[in-house]
Formats: sequence, structure tokens, C-alpha cells
Amino acid sequence: MSEVSRFGHVELEDMPVDIRERLEPIVEKSGFVPNVFRALARRPRELRAFLDYHDALMDSDDGLSRAERELIVVATSGANHCTYCVVAHGAILRIRARDPEIADKVASNPYAVTLSPRERAIVDLALLIARESETLTEEDLDTARAAGLTDEEIWDVGSITALFGLSNRIAHLTALAPNPEFYLLGRQPR
Amino acid sequence: MSEVSRFGHVELEDMPVDIRERLEPIVEKSGFVPNVFRALARRPRELRAFLDYHDALMDSDDGLSRAERELIVVATSGANHCTYCVVAHGAILRIRARDPEIADKVASNPYAVTLSPRERAIVDLALLIARESETLTEEDLDTARAAGLTDEEIWDVGSITALFGLSNRIAHLTALAPNPEFYLLGRQPR
Amino acid sequence: MSEVSRFGHVELEDMPVDIRERLEPIVEKSGFVPNVFRALARRPRELRAFLDYHDALMDSDDGLSRAERELIVVATSGANHCTYCVVAHGAILRIRARDPEIADKVASNPYAVTLSPRERAIVDLALLIARESETLTEEDLDTARAAGLTDEEIWDVGSITALFGLSNRIAHLTALAPNPEFYLLGRQPR
Amino acid sequence: MSEVSRFGHVELEDMPVDIRERLEPIVEKSGFVPNVFRALARRPRELRAFLDYHDALMDSDDGLSRAERELIVVATSGANHCTYCVVAHGAILRIRARDPEIADKVASNPYAVTLSPRERAIVDLALLIARESETLTEEDLDTARAAGLTDEEIWDVGSITALFGLSNRIAHLTALAPNPEFYLLGRQPR
Amino acid sequence: MSEVSRFGHVELEDMPVDIRERLEPIVEKSGFVPNVFRALARRPRELRAFLDYHDALMDSDDGLSRAERELIVVATSGANHCTYCVVAHGAILRIRARDPEIADKVASNPYAVTLSPRERAIVDLALLIARESETLTEEDLDTARAAGLTDEEIWDVGSITALFGLSNRIAHLTALAPNPEFYLLGRQPR
Amino acid sequence: MSEVSRFGHVELEDMPVDIRERLEPIVEKSGFVPNVFRALARRPRELRAFLDYHDALMDSDDGLSRAERELIVVATSGANHCTYCVVAHGAILRIRARDPEIADKVASNPYAVTLSPRERAIVDLALLIARESETLTEEDLDTARAAGLTDEEIWDVGSITALFGLSNRIAHLTALAPNPEFYLLGRQPR
Repeated sequence: MSEVSRFGHVELEDMPVDIRERLEPIVEKSGFVPNVFRALARRPRELRAFLDYHDALMDSDDGLSRAERELIVVATSGANHCTYCVVAHGAILRIRARDPEIADKVASNPYAVTLSPRERAIVDLALLIARESETLTEEDLDTARAAGLTDEEIWDVGSITALFGLSNRIAHLTALAPNPEFYLLGRQPR
Repeated sequence: MSEVSRFGHVELEDMPVDIRERLEPIVEKSGFVPNVFRALARRPRELRAFLDYHDALMDSDDGLSRAERELIVVATSGANHCTYCVVAHGAILRIRARDPEIADKVASNPYAVTLSPRERAIVDLALLIARESETLTEEDLDTARAAGLTDEEIWDVGSITALFGLSNRIAHLTALAPNPEFYLLGRQPR
Repeated sequence: MSEVSRFGHVELEDMPVDIRERLEPIVEKSGFVPNVFRALARRPRELRAFLDYHDALMDSDDGLSRAERELIVVATSGANHCTYCVVAHGAILRIRARDPEIADKVASNPYAVTLSPRERAIVDLALLIARESETLTEEDLDTARAAGLTDEEIWDVGSITALFGLSNRIAHLTALAPNPEFYLLGRQPR
Repeated sequence: MSEVSRFGHVELEDMPVDIRERLEPIVEKSGFVPNVFRALARRPRELRAFLDYHDALMDSDDGLSRAERELIVVATSGANHCTYCVVAHGAILRIRARDPEIADKVASNPYAVTLSPRERAIVDLALLIARESETLTEEDLDTARAAGLTDEEIWDVGSITALFGLSNRIAHLTALAPNPEFYLLGRQPR
Repeated sequence: MSEVSRFGHVELEDMPVDIRERLEPIVEKSGFVPNVFRALARRPRELRAFLDYHDALMDSDDGLSRAERELIVVATSGANHCTYCVVAHGAILRIRARDPEIADKVASNPYAVTLSPRERAIVDLALLIARESETLTEEDLDTARAAGLTDEEIWDVGSITALFGLSNRIAHLTALAPNPEFYLLGRQPR
Repeated sequence: MSEVSRFGHVELEDMPVDIRERLEPIVEKSGFVPNVFRALARRPRELRAFLDYHDALMDSDDGLSRAERELIVVATSGANHCTYCVVAHGAILRIRARDPEIADKVASNPYAVTLSPRERAIVDLALLIARESETLTEEDLDTARAAGLTDEEIWDVGSITALFGLSNRIAHLTALAPNPEFYLLGRQPR
């Protein structure tokens, strides 16, 4: 087993050029290649689709803020017990929310962590979709709307939850290990 | 609420041209536009990513057969209680497996439906990943390997399960309705 | 294993005469002997009691309509993952409700299928009794009453759910296979 | 609410004569009319069917002993949290097994109570059918067979579990109260 | 295996003198040494801490009555399926509440047993903390407050539930057997 | 609500002198008063009992190592979704195990984290006792014994799990907040 994934991985220099070019800004910014990309690069078509889906949902401040989007990811990944996503997106959430404690609180107990009413509505909807989406009804959406979420924001909550439900499952399938750097990122106030 | 999705939908002629061209062969073959595309077309970037991921995993007979891939989709969607995917992919499974009964059996009870040992290993792994992926260990993969699955096939089982877990959640979020045509497809021996 | 039940079965001509006479109108109407009777006929006393209980609860339009009674059966059997009952009573529900789609919708997701308020109250009560009856309180009954159900109708909902909970368990025990005819019945508008 | 059932009840002298004659030996032996009969007598057809089913499964020492049959009832009712059946059949189990402690042990924790291997196989099968019958496979039956159960005994275990699953649900529906006499029966060694 | 615990036990005369002196009034009053003390006496430091915690929470009528405290213990132990605690504290509850039926009702079905509104609020809070404490929010406490519980009483409900959750787990770990005397205590009106 | 607990808290200087003296070495070593003590100090008798139980189980290297004892606490607290215990004991585990990643891995997914066979046996037993102790049988203990655990070590695993199950519930009840210092402790290699 490689230290990245139980199915092995691909180093940045061995990835197809379009993927390499796409990942380089991320690598430059963070200083390392997140393991999810090295593990998924064994299947370039799937990695491209994953990146496209990810960017369509996560690279935006339109409606949900970037911090709110990461909040959904950490709550979903905590409820799904996904170590990679909790550690990696926990780091991003700490940075985006400028709060060194929020990620550990949300990941360990998304059900009762103290949040603003808007954040609580976002997390409640995400948890419902992550763990028992078959029971979701119009009333559940009305609860979210009553907390101020628009239908486009509700779509975003649901789709981000669904995408990271996919991501959590692939991380479990591949025994994906977080890069050591993620554990410390965003923990010290700057 | 439109009859397609609670968030409305886009007709084929109003979709971006690249998506329209991509869907046309499907529409031609089946005689209708599957509602999942009309509902997701509200968000073209997400629809493109979904189609790319779908095609990378489903349009292949390399390793898993196409019938086995649809078997995973129907078992996952049955366990996740997703009406759209059960009805739509149930139709495709009936056709691919040339069996008018298999989809209803798998969808209603994926846990105990009688299958070949290889199919049972595929479905057991899919159900584990669909419903409690956090508990998956190397021993679970060894069980799949003992039934003859290669690591590439195991990856496919896991990724198809994860992708349709996403799909099931979006269908629940949007209250996606199956096209009436799906209910009857593949039910009569030809 | 016979193709009917893992414990074998009895053909109509070998059943006790009272049972044979009782089943003949059903066989005449449907054109075949439903497998549940062939499987249970190994134990005539139990089959007679089952038929009596069934007829007392299902052969009536007093209070709950016949379509509503079958709705309860399909919702319960879907929640209990019973292939035989989903397929056989799904056929009857399609016919009684004159709706070719209702059974697949209810069986795959009884929790969120769109129904009238009265039907939703019926199905919610049935699901509660089917899956966690120990938590049922007077408030749950008041919810049903608020949707217009009388106490006699509530008794019917509960007893039908309980009887088909029995039926679902015996179908699982015997690996009861649906007759091929059920899969198509009621699917085409007449 | 009557003290017997939330839907009222019928006294012995007001029951149809055939039911009264049938219950009289029970009443004579125990000295009181078990409340389940008074509550169900509101619906004589259902009560007759219930009595027939009950007698077909419980009044026999052929294969399973009477104590084993009551063991199934108490384990099922404990797992289903049914107060009436735990208290009433707990009394019968104490008497049949000549053991003043067995019923409280089985009802409070059917999962880990110390039993003989044959009894453990019976209770394990009953619990599987009571709580998650959809997962039952041939391997589960082989486990029961390996503990010495015949197929007829397996059928009995499954059918008794299913019948008392029905009974538990109706007791919850009707808020059925145990007769005070049951609490003490069989508790003192004679 | 001793008849008290799977890890053996210590008789009263072999216990450290401070523990012996502490237990003597209990033994004198009840006429026997409750097995929990004999089993835990293998680890005197743990037994002393357990007794201290127990007495701090249970030996008081300040706020919650002694009967209410035992009600919490029996409801928690019933939900946790702990035979020792159901039988032993069931006896104490019968005595404290002067009700020969209450313990069997609460233990078999704490979810729906008929109670006063104050008792129901106590039991609901206990069940929430016993089985899914991670979801507890301020709203749940407000529900308890609305039924008249003070914050000190809420603390008591939570701490008693938590302490007997510990006790239930140790009883399961040690396969702790109830003393025969407990089964009958408090069953006959005096 | 104080920032420590929803029921307020007591500062070190206001605690009874015996408790203050007992906590001082901890405070000196860590540089702050862990919030659990400030919250529980509202009830000195309960705090003393908790400290006694804690010390009896945690302050020892006899049998289980101190790192193994903290491993049990973090696995249990992760499975129970307890933020305070995950953050506070996660810090202690990082220090005791000299591993900056272990706590986040165990807390987020105790079910599948990679561990040595002995550690896996310890964690599996702890999870079983934390979440479904009613099903524990002698076979489960034999599995632990086969991994080399003695009966005294098994007792320790079970009792530590039970004690922190209590602790987790009280943390949820009081909405106990981790001290900010815990989040960073042990994260940097020294």
C-alpha cells in the first residue's frame, strides 16, 4: 500500500499535462499536492470530471460564501466519518472562516455545534441530505427558506453535500491519507 | 412545481449547444429526453461534469460488464430509496441483462436477491459503500477479491456507487420525476 | 429449491378442497395461482387463518377505499423491502388506483412520494407502525385524526400494516418468488 | 380511554357465542380474560383469524417445545418493546420453562442472554426476522440447521416471530394494557 | 464463570473494611449483597468511586424525588437493554413508586409508557441522552423546562442517565447476573 | 451561557480546597484549568467521584499503556461525537503516542483507521461497548483475547469506555467547550 491510497497514486510530473497545469496553481499556493489528486490521477477522466464538478460548486461567492461552502463539506464529512475530507477541508474551513476552532467542532459534532441560524439551517439541510435524503420533503426546504436561504442556495447546499458524499466514499474506498501539512494549516491566528 | 423537478427544468432546445449535441444520440435512441438532464440543465457546468463522470464510469465493458454496472446503480438506488434512479436505471438494467424481472427484485431487496457469487460480491460491496462506507476495511476488499474482482473492478464498483449516491441525493433534492416511458421499457420479452 | 419458495410448495389440485374452492375465484380472475398461496398451502391451518385475516381487512370499501388499503400494503412492503409483496400488491394497487406509476413510486420511496394529505397521513401512520411501532403515541394518532381519519380507519391502517408485516416476514423466510404475471399487470392504460 | 385499550373493549359476555365458547377454557384455567381478547373482540372476524393463526402455531409440542415457542414470543416482543406481550407471554414462559427468571432476562436483553446452543439459534433467527428480515439469506438458515433445527422448526420460528410481530404492532396501536394478574404469574417456585 | 460475573467476584467478608462498612446497611435492609457490589469489588478504587457518584446523585429528595430518580434508571436501562439494572432497579422503583407494574412497563417500552407530563419530560430527556446525546440542543432543554424541570433537575436527569449508562455497560461487560431476590421485590401490594 | 458550560462554572480559586489541591498539579503542568473541572465543580461531590474514577482507570501503565488508554477515550468520544473529549483527549493522545496525526484519524473514523492488531482489538471492543453493549457476548471477548488482551486489560477497555461514555454525555448535557489551548497541543513534533 502506498502512503497515499491503497490503490497507489500518480505523482504530479506523471499526470497528463492538462491536469498538471490545472493543479499547479493549487500546488503553488499550498506548497504541496493534495493526496486526493494523486490518488484520483490513476483515472484521469474521473479526476477531470471531479475537478469540474468541484469548481462549479466550490469556486464561487455567489449566494453561499466560500466559508459556508466549506462548512457544508466539513459537516458532511464529519457525519460520514471521512478522515481525509475532515482534515483537508477542515484546514480550508479554518482559513476561510478565520477561526482556528470551527473545523474540529463541526467535524466532531455537526448535530449540536453552536452556529448562527443561517449556518444551522445550512448544516441541518446538509446532514439530512447526507444521511437520509430519502425522507426530504418540501417542509424541510421551507425550513431552510425560513432561515433565509434562496432556492439557488438550497441547490448549492444539496449538491455540495452530494458531491462530498461521493468524495467521502471514494476516500473510504481508497483509504486516502491526508497530507501531513493539512493537520496544522489555519490553526494559528495570524 | 414543474412535473420534472421542484426547481423547474430546461427543455432540450434551450440547452447550450454542446450539451444538446451530446444528448441527441440518447434522445434519438430512447425517443425522449430523460428528466435528469432537463432538471440538471439549469446548471450547465454541473450537468457537463455529471455527464463526464457518468460516461467515464458507465460507458465501458472493460472489466465490469454494462449489465453489472447497471446492477450496481439499481442496488445502490434501491438501498437509497431513489425513485428516479430505480425507475430509469431499472429500465436500462432490464434491457442490458435481458431479464424483465431483475430490476424490481434488486431495487426492492438488494440485500437478499438471488444472484451469482460474482454479482453478490459486487452488490455487497456497493451496499457497504452506499450505506456505511466508513466501516470499509481491507478485509471487505479481500472478500470481493475472493469472488474474482480485480482492483480496477473494485474501484469501478466503489466509484459507480459513489456517483449514484450523488445522483440519488440530487434526485431527492429536486423531487425528480421519472419519465413515464421508463416504467414499461424492457418489461416485455422481445 | 422450488421456483416458488425455498421450502417447496403445493399445487392447487393438491390443496384441501375448502382452500381450493376459496382460491378458485381468484385464480379465475387473475389467470394464475399467486405463489403466496402455493407456498403457504404446505400448512393449511396457517393458510386458512391468513386468508381469513386478509379478507377481514382487505375486502371492504367501508372507510378506507380498496385503493387506500393496497397503498398501505405497498408502502409497508417497500419499507420492509419485501419483493413478493411489492410486486404482487404493486400490481393490485396499479389496478385499483388506475395509475400505472403509483406502485413503483410508493415502493421505492414511501417516505417522500407525493400524495394527497389523507393518503400521506395513512402512509405516515403505516410507516411508523411498520418500522418503530414502539414509539407510537396518542399524538401520532391525533395527527392522523387531523387529516380526517376515523378511529376505525386508524385501526384498519394499523392492522393492515401489521398483517403485511407478517406477510413480508414470511415471504423473506420462504424466499417467496413473485409470479411472472404480476410484473406487467396494470402497467398499460386500458 | 378504557383501561384495556385506547379504542375500548368488549366484555366476555358480549362477545359472539363461538368466541365466548372458545375463550372459556382459557378463562377458566387462568381465572381472567386476557385483555388482548377483550380489545380485539371489537372486530370478531379479525379475532377469529388471530386465534386460528395463534393456535396453529402455538398449541403444539411437535418439533419446537411449548417453552421454546414462548421463548420466541418473549424474545420477539422484547426486541419490539411490546409491554403487553412481554408481560403476558413472560408469565406463560415462566410457567412453561419452570424458571421464574427466564422471561425478564430474555425480554430485557434477548441479544446476549445465556441460552443453550439450540435456544440461542432459535432466538437469533427470531431476532433477525423480527428486526431486519430483508437481510435473511440461506446462510442464516444453515446456521440454524447447524444447531439442529429442522426446516419445519425453522418455519415455526419464522412464523411465530411474524405472528407476534403483528401482535406487538396491534398492542402498540391499541395501547393494550396487560391484566394485573400476569405480572406475578409463575414468579414463585411451586 | 461465577454465577455473579464472568470475571469472578468478591464476597462481602473479603472486601476492604471501608467498603464492607459502607455496604452493611444496604445488606441489612435488603437481606442480601447486591451482585453489582460483589462484581465491582474486584477493583476497590473503582467501586468506591462508583458508590460515591451513585450516592451523590441517588440519595436525595431535593428536586427530583427518589421515585423519579429510579424512573430514570429503569428507563435508561430498558433502552440500553441491561438485564441487571432493569431487574435490580425495577425492584427499587416498584418500592419507591408503590406501584407493582410500573417497572415492567417502563423497562419494556420507555418510549410510549403512559406517564404524567413531568415524568414524560424526564424520561424523554433521559432517553435522548442515553441513546443519541450528540443531538441534544438548547431546544430539548427548553422542552424539559416547559414541563417544569429546573436546571438543577435537568442536570440530575442527565447525570443519572450518564451514570447508569456507565453501569449498564459494565453490567454487559461482566455479564452481571441479578440476585434472585430482586425479581420478586415490590411485586405484591403490602 | 458562560463560555465554559451552559450551566455556568466555578473558577479554581472558588473550588473547595481539597479539589483545588488536587487540580493544581494538572494546572501547573498544562498551564490552564481544563474546562471539564470548572463545569463539574458546580457539584463538588460528583466532581470528586469523577476524579477518583478517572484516576483509578487512567493513571496507570499496568497492562494497557497510557497511550492505549487515551486511544480508547478518543475512539469512544469520536463515535459518541463529543467535541470536548475529542479535542481535550486528542491533545493528550498526541502527546502520549508522540504522533501529531493519530487523534484526528481516530476521532474522525475509529471504525477503519489503520492500527496495530492489538490496538484494533482494543478499539473494536471499545466501539462495541460504546454503541451497542447489549450485544456483547463471550465470543467478542475471545476475539480480544486472541489479540493478546488479558482479562484485566479487557476490564480496563470496558470501564474506560463506560466512564468516557458518561463523560461524553455530561459534556453534551452541559454544552462543554474545550479550552482553546487543547486545539494545538501536541501538533508540532518537538
